[in-house]
Order: sequence, then structure tokens, then C-alpha cells
Amino acid sequence: MTSDLNPADERLAAKLPQGVIRDIAPAYLEEPRGRFSGHAGLIAAPRDAEETAAIIRACAAARVAVVPRGGGTGLVGGQVMPDGPPPLILSLERMSAIRDVHADEGVMVAEAGVTLQAARDAAAEAGRQFPLSLASQGSAQIGGVLATNAGGVNVLRHGNARALCLGVEAVLPSGQIMHDLKRLRKDNTGYDIRDLLIGAEGSLGIITAASLVMAPVPAETGVALLVVQDPASALRLLAMAQSRMAGGVTAFELLSGQGLQFLAEHFPQMRQPFSPIPAWLALVEVGLPEGLKADDALEGMFVDGAEAGLVTDGVIARSGQQAADLWALREHIPLANRAVGAIASHDISLPLSEVAGFIAEAGRMLDGEGDMRVNCFGHLGDGNLHFNLFPASGRARDEYDDVRKALSRRIHEMVMARGGSFSAEHGVGRLKTGDLARWGDPARLTAMRAIKQALDPLGIMNPGAVLSQ
Amino acid sequence: MTSDLNPADERLAAKLPQGVIRDIAPAYLEEPRGRFSGHAGLIAAPRDAEETAAIIRACAAARVAVVPRGGGTGLVGGQVMPDGPPPLILSLERMSAIRDVHADEGVMVAEAGVTLQAARDAAAEAGRQFPLSLASQGSAQIGGVLATNAGGVNVLRHGNARALCLGVEAVLPSGQIMHDLKRLRKDNTGYDIRDLLIGAEGSLGIITAASLVMAPVPAETGVALLVVQDPASALRLLAMAQSRMAGGVTAFELLSGQGLQFLAEHFPQMRQPFSPIPAWLALVEVGLPEGLKADDALEGMFVDGAEAGLVTDGVIARSGQQAADLWALREHIPLANRAVGAIASHDISLPLSEVAGFIAEAGRMLDGEGDMRVNCFGHLGDGNLHFNLFPASGRARDEYDDVRKALSRRIHEMVMARGGSFSAEHGVGRLKTGDLARWGDPARLTAMRAIKQALDPLGIMNPGAVLSQ
Repeated sequence: MTSDLNPADERLAAKLPQGVIRDIAPAYLEEPRGRFSGHAGLIAAPRDAEETAAIIRACAAARVAVVPRGGGTGLVGGQVMPDGPPPLILSLERMSAIRDVHADEGVMVAEAGVTLQAARDAAAEAGRQFPLSLASQGSAQIGGVLATNAGGVNVLRHGNARALCLGVEAVLPSGQIMHDLKRLRKDNTGYDIRDLLIGAEGSLGIITAASLVMAPVPAETGVALLVVQDPASALRLLAMAQSRMAGGVTAFELLSGQGLQFLAEHFPQMRQPFSPIPAWLALVEVGLPEGLKADDALEGMFVDGAEAGLVTDGVIARSGQQAADLWALREHIPLANRAVGAIASHDISLPLSEVAGFIAEAGRMLDGEGDMRVNCFGHLGDGNLHFNLFPASGRARDEYDDVRKALSRRIHEMVMARGGSFSAEHGVGRLKTGDLARWGDPARLTAMRAIKQALDPLGIMNPGAVLSQ
Repeated sequence: MTSDLNPADERLAAKLPQGVIRDIAPAYLEEPRGRFSGHAGLIAAPRDAEETAAIIRACAAARVAVVPRGGGTGLVGGQVMPDGPPPLILSLERMSAIRDVHADEGVMVAEAGVTLQAARDAAAEAGRQFPLSLASQGSAQIGGVLATNAGGVNVLRHGNARALCLGVEAVLPSGQIMHDLKRLRKDNTGYDIRDLLIGAEGSLGIITAASLVMAPVPAETGVALLVVQDPASALRLLAMAQSRMAGGVTAFELLSGQGLQFLAEHFPQMRQPFSPIPAWLALVEVGLPEGLKADDALEGMFVDGAEAGLVTDGVIARSGQQAADLWALREHIPLANRAVGAIASHDISLPLSEVAGFIAEAGRMLDGEGDMRVNCFGHLGDGNLHFNLFPASGRARDEYDDVRKALSRRIHEMVMARGGSFSAEHGVGRLKTGDLARWGDPARLTAMRAIKQALDPLGIMNPGAVLSQ
């Protein structure tokens, strides 16, 4: 299995724990969007934190870079190293145990290689929910979800991955294991190393297990798809609803007519609730206490929204199947986007009061740039838009090659001028290190570099991710 | 004003921005429990981040330590330096502006010197709530609340101070200003420096302003005081209620009969709802959507709890005044404690399923230690107990001087053996550096020291706080 290795990798392999080495299969070298293709000297899959630590120590001694890999679903190239000396890819796939489920506490302890779906299933079995939900949850793993501080559709109610993590077990670049799998809601005992590792995309250490919050399952849930006047109306509707429901709106997704048009073209079998296709829609999910009916709450939201001139039409799911069908529309939009083929995509966030202004301003700018289609959708309740540009009908992506970069730059400039972010939920990875260097606050960047140097002086942990080298 | 200064301080004073120096008044050198008394070479009160940065740079050049000071209400001595060369105390008192209130976004931007009460009032004026509530909120300031990651009574629903902060402006030990006052719910652009500064107790930099979350005000709120069989029953009651109310229980405080007894002795004018005084009680607050009645929800909780054998008696507040009276009982317990005079107090947290076992085990241990009274109370929903020991009736505190330290050590040992924390919400300060060194995970401590050295190589920021020197 290791016979194809070069001599240096073979020497390193001999220092690793027994049985951790895996074949260098192509799947370990890919990322979903095909923007980067990686290489590797070795692939190692440890069974526990001790083996992980032994691998890190061996790599440190050999000065070989370590690229941690979870489900490989990240969209910014954090999981692949395209150049430089071939790294060791450390796959967490074999650390896939759910170590403990404390149903009464609302806490589970899961290893890094547990898929998000498996974590959600384990919580459901315990009569709870793990309220992190992403399109890629069947493959994405807890370690990667934490390393990238993943977001998804329920951030509005439950926060990002960071907010759902009470403690971690992690291997630091020194090879030391940090045992901090606390199951505590309060623990003010020094610097927040946990939150530093969360979101560091494997560049400060490797999370090998985590204590995760399992939230109560609301007694009543419901879903509606509402036609709204425009994004500003959608946000006013959300604010009204949150006040009435004490924060019971658990998801609030923006859909555009362009997105539904793409769906109609590429998934014609999906039933679309409105004809003609409206310009803007909000997919709303609520989770409410016993004693309320979700249908009533959503109807009330519709009626109030209509009276206020915010909402013009809508459907409320009358069954679990109908709710799933409405969610399927939302979840197929990224697939339709892929089928169309984006010129450029932007995972941006804005202060809520800047969202509508940005959409209008960016639209005006693009109108002046010639023929293009915009699909703007996403987690509106969080101010997180996926603002994606597509070729005009009948034109090809590569006709836009010469304007792509400049357009993205101008969109990011508009976002940053409004106090926004160029990476809301996907992270920096290798794709956005230039953006971070350009837009990041200088004092914050200096602190980041000092921390990277302090914790990983040899620079072996996922070099080139987050901070450019 | 500066005529009493020694020559070195006078030279430093000359380098500071015009008009920042204050008299060295005794109030700047104290902390509420009187365990530490501080000293100072200079007191400086800057008006903005730029002046703060200039002071830090001058102190760095002169190698003078900087002790940041907010409302001075911290309980672990983080705000006073008792020994070593006299520091400059940097008071944030003049940075007391609320810069912006974005009611629609649910975000306000407040300077470090804004009191918690002023922040709460500003949110209320905007039709929102800033859901951090502490006994000392009239004096505690936002900067200190964040530096210590303060907790309080609504953590159950809204999290600690960290969870309520979207962004910070801070001066780093280098004298650079980090401009990161984002108003974003999602921003995955590199290492989480914000959460590193939060909870670092001024030892990694000085937070000068923050973007804070304002939550919706629930349509319906209610308060009840329920007599519970024991702490385990209280926790089962909470779990039942959280499921039914979709997380609508916003506070869940444990009170002990001993605490009410202390109240009866020292605040006899306060009306006590139960006679004889019960052994254990839970103070419950709910925040619910429109369409529900808080009274109904609390009555349902009482009935279900009684049927399950968890609750034996209770009162539900029928007016705002009655609700305030029930809260007053809880809020006066620390005052009664102070009047009695504790032998030792412990701000501990435990995994929820370990709380009842700990209380029983610690009780048995103390029974064997002779005559003592225990007041165990606190934020039960967070697993956060204030487990405080008092002299037996008629005995004096100093009779326990020889056992105090050993008792605290044994209590902390029990807590740590159950996966708990020796400092749930008060922080480490100067009081608990020894506990952190003893109980902290070695890898985590190594990382903390490396970060301190990387960001503050001169060691000027609040030296001796969090990490012992």
C-alpha cells in the first residue's frame, strides 16, 4: 500500500501509529467546486486523539504539513493543498463514534468524524434536536463543521456551529492533546481557546471531539412560503413576527424569482406554488410552544403582512410532506445554480438594515455591466446572502472571464462599505486569503499572525489556509 | 493634581493625552469583597479609543503595567493590583456613549463605560431588550461585563455576555486599535479575536466599544416561585417545561431554605410566601409568544410538576409588582449572605446531570466537618451554583479560619471530578489563578501562555490577572 511512496514519505510513514495509513484515493484530493485540486504525500486516518497527536508530532519532526480533512464539503479549498511540498492529509473519518448522549442535559459528545446527519439523528433519538442544518449534512462531519464555524438555515434561532459547542478535545500543533470536553453552559476560566480553534479551519490545531448542545424540539412547527414585495418588506415582516413569537421564527430564507426560474428550467418536475413566478419570496419556519398552532401563527403573519403591504400571496404547508416540498424548493436552488453555471458567487453578510440597500445598489451596478442574471438568495434573517451572477440566457460562462474578478471586487467593495463581510458562512480557506488580507482590519490581522506563530511556530498546520503564506 | 506623583509617574504623565489624568481616589483601588486592596501610580480616563491607544503606547514605552477598570464590580480582583510596581489604572468611565441604536436590526453599539443598566434602558427605549441581567447592573460597565464574560439570570435563554456581542473595538497591547465593530450575525473571516478578548479580563487588550444584540421583548412574561422536592426535581421540571415552551423558560433560579432563613433574619420586612420555609424552591420566569398566557403556562407547569411529584406548592405572580417582589427575594439573598458573613463561597458549574449528586455529596462531606450552614443557590438552569458556607448560628467566621482553605479545595475537587468548573461566571481574576494553574488542562494553559506572550510580550496588560506571573 505504501510501496508507491517517495523515500521521505516512507520514512515518515514508518514513524506513524500502526495501521493509520490509507491509499491516496482521488476523493481525498478534491473539493466540491473543482477550483482547487490537491496533492498529498500520505493520507492518515487515526482512530483517536492519541493517534492524532502521534501523527502531528511525527509530522512536526519531519517538517511535513498536515491538512485535516472531514467530509470534504467545504467550499473555499480549506481541505486541499494545491501546491508546495506534498502534505499529510489527516482524515478524521475513523473517529466516528458518538461517545455519549446526555438527553437530560441536552448535550452529546461526538467525535470529529461523525457526520452532521448522524449527529442530528442521535439527537432526534434522544428526543432532542441538533439544530444545525446544511445542504451537505449527509457528508459534512462535526470536526469540519466546527473548524469552519458552519452556519445553515437555523442560525436565526440557534446560532452558528460555535454557539452549539460547549467544549472540545483537540490536538494542538505542539502535539499536545487539549482535554476540554466540558458539558458546561458557564465556565469562565481563562482564554477562550475553544472558540479560537472553532473557525480556524484546521490552521491552529485539530478538533477530535466536541460536546454539542441538543436543543428542545418545539411542540409545534410549521412552514410557509410567502410572496413578499421586496427584501426590505421581508425583513420588516420578520421583525414583526419575531416580536409576536418571542423569537419563535427558526428559519427565514430569501428566494428570488430568478432562483425559481432556474428551478423551473432545470428541475421542471418540481411543483412551483406560484404562477407567474414572483420576484421575491420568503420561506418561513416557526417553532412554537404547546398551546399555539403553527398554522395560526403563520396565517397571522400572512394577514398582518398583507395588511402592512409587505406580503401579497403565500402558501402554508398543511402536512409534513408539504413542508418538505417547500423546503425542497429552497434546497434545490444551489443545485439549479450549479446546472446553470455561475460566473461568480458571493457568500456575503450585511447588517440587516443594509441588506435592501445593497441589493438595490448592486443591481444598479450590474445593470450597467451588460447582460447578466442575478440569483440573490440565502439566510435573510441572518443578513447572509448568496449573491450569485450567471450568464444571460444563451450566453456562456467564459464570455465573462474578463469581467469576473472586477465584478466580484466591486460587489465586495459595496458589501464592505456597508459594514458587511466577504465570507459569512463558508470561511476563508485558500479561496479568500487575498480578500482577508485586503479587507481584514490590520490590528486583527497582526493579532492573528502572532497567534498562528505562537501556536504553530513550524507552520505545519494547514499552511496557506486562512492566512496566506 | 499630579503634584504628588513620583518622578517616573510624572514623566509618564507628561506623555499621556491632555486631560486624561484623574486623582487617585480610593474608589479606584477597591473591589467589592475587600479581599484585595490595590495601588496605582496614575489613574487615566481616556475619552476614546485613540486616547486609550496613546496611553497604552506610553505605558509600553515606560514598561508600566495597565489595569483596566470598568464599574469595579468584579468579584475576583481582576480590577486591582495589590503588589508590584504601581500600575496605571485605565478607567473607561468617560467612554459612556451609546453610539448607535439600530432598533430594526436588534443591535446597539455601546462604549465600554456604558453601565449595564444604561444599555438595558437604551434597548427598552428602542422596544427591545438587552437580556443580560446582574445584581450589579447599575454600576457594572459594558467593557467589564465583556472582559469577564458575565452571566446572570437570563443565560438560560440568551447566553453569557459573549453570546450577546457581535463585534468589538479594542486596543491591543501593541497600542493598535482593532476596528471590528461589526453588526453581523455571520462573519467567518479568520480567527475569533473577539471571543479571545471577551473573558480575558483585560489581560490581552482593552475593549473600548461593542456591538450588542438586542433581543425581541416577549409578548407575554410571567414569574412563579415553586416549592420543589429537591434540586433533581427542579431540573426535571425545567426539562419538561422547556420542551413544552420551546425554550421559553428565560430564568430558572434555585433558592434554598437556608437562603430564605437568612432573608428572614436580615430582611424581616420582606414578605415570605411560604411558612414554614421550604427546603428548596425554584424561581421561574417565562417569555412567550402572543396567543399564550404566561399564567396558564406557569399553572400548567405547576400542575404537571405536582402530578409528577416534583412540585409541592407554589405562587404565581399576578401583577408586575408581585413578579418584582418574587425577584426581590432572589436578589436579596446575596445581601443577606453578606450580612451573615460567609466562611467560603464557590461560584461553580456542573453538567446538569451532576448537580443533584454534587449537592448531596458535598452536603455529606460538610456534615462530617462539624457545625456549619450551607446556602446553595443560583442559576440552576445553567448548572451554575453559588455554594456558600456560613458559620453555625452563634459562631463567628474566624472560628473556621483553619478549615476554610481545605474545605474549598475539597469542594472544588468534587466539582472537577464531576466535570465541572471552579469559576462559572465570575472569572479568574487574581483570586483564582492558583485554581486555574491546578485544575486547568495543561495543553490549554500552554496555549494560553503562548497567546499572552505573543500578544503582550512586555506583559503590561493587567499582569497577574488570569495567569499568575
